[in-house]
Amino acid sequence: MEFKVIEIKQGVLSANDRDADALRQKLKENGAFLLNVMSSPGSGKTSTLLQTIPRLSEALRIGVMEADIDSDVDARTVASTGARVIQLHTGGMCHLDAEMTRQGLEELGYGDLDLVILENVGNLVCPAEFDTGAVKNAVILSVPEGDDKPLKYPLMFTVADVLLVNKMDAAACFDFDLDRFVQRVHALRPGIPIFPISAKTGEGVEPWCDWLRQQVRQWQDA
Amino acid sequence: MEFKVIEIKQGVLSANDRDADALRQKLKENGAFLLNVMSSPGSGKTSTLLQTIPRLSEALRIGVMEADIDSDVDARTVASTGARVIQLHTGGMCHLDAEMTRQGLEELGYGDLDLVILENVGNLVCPAEFDTGAVKNAVILSVPEGDDKPLKYPLMFTVADVLLVNKMDAAACFDFDLDRFVQRVHALRPGIPIFPISAKTGEGVEPWCDWLRQQVRQWQDA
Repeated sequence: MEFKVIEIKQGVLSANDRDADALRQKLKENGAFLLNVMSSPGSGKTSTLLQTIPRLSEALRIGVMEADIDSDVDARTVASTGARVIQLHTGGMCHLDAEMTRQGLEELGYGDLDLVILENVGNLVCPAEFDTGAVKNAVILSVPEGDDKPLKYPLMFTVADVLLVNKMDAAACFDFDLDRFVQRVHALRPGIPIFPISAKTGEGVEPWCDWLRQQVRQWQDA
Repeated sequence: MEFKVIEIKQGVLSANDRDADALRQKLKENGAFLLNVMSSPGSGKTSTLLQTIPRLSEALRIGVMEADIDSDVDARTVASTGARVIQLHTGGMCHLDAEMTRQGLEELGYGDLDLVILENVGNLVCPAEFDTGAVKNAVILSVPEGDDKPLKYPLMFTVADVLLVNKMDAAACFDFDLDRFVQRVHALRPGIPIFPISAKTGEGVEPWCDWLRQQVRQWQDA
């Protein structure tokens, strides 16, 4: 499957929240659910998509927007799932805002899609500050990054609607206390669903996919 | 040992390069070497300092500035080495510029120090765009992040003067090709020294400390 490389520019930041709400409204009218996936570089956003998309593609029509400062390696990889994929180049920007997301969605086309997944720039700081217009924000934290990250990057965990703890297969190599991590996340965002997974082995991916499938249906039916 | 928490604000960005050069000149006059340490969140900046400082503290008088958006966990940890430590809160900013670094150095005091280590905000994107006034930039990439990071975050590897590949002890858990990684880094930054280390076990830390000790002496003698 082919994909496009789109050069996008930063929108008007001051109007971002209004743009984001307008975009969500438009997605709603088209019955499309936008999921914004954020994490540090190397936490496993792309490999999580590789596990997620095949499990959902029978029930849902899926599109993916891969945002990167440079390169198109992720778009090439994700295109192998058969999903409709475009690459967004942010031109050095460390995040996406609602206008950049809207431009990407126009290029991708979403009138015939149930689920669009936006893989944001790998960054645990800046993307948290900009509402992209997504219906839900998913944050991935991988075990090797450490269980203290909610203390250091609180905004990212505060804006998350769902949290994936990736690389559980490597847990034996690291001093990662999942209970302590969950406590720290819930102190910032009480009751947020947390799914420990391994995007390498597929362990734990099924419950996460069930959650996402349900979210898309609720959005479309409401 | 006690440490201070300083609230700093973003300086005038347009003049950043000039500010950075002026700061380097001032450091030079005082015989102080400033090392700017950058990486993704969770790559092991703090644990690398915990291995590095005790090995150098007999020969060098060392100060540390811990920059974080929030929290003071890193400063508390590093203070245990006996180094003079201050915590810089960036007030939500995702990077440090030269003026913020200058304010931090004034608070720390560096007239009596040989080496000041700045632990920048955990972010593989934004800090690469701002010259802090450091004499050298060290970048840490950890094995679990993957060997493709130079392709996705080229600026960070282009501004690096030295590169540490951390968490080598966990290499067996991950598909990380060190040779391929080195090739990708050297394509961006030919000849840059690269030290594979484990901040957990101390493996490989000695050659990195030798390199840093030599850099400080050259700066002071030149």
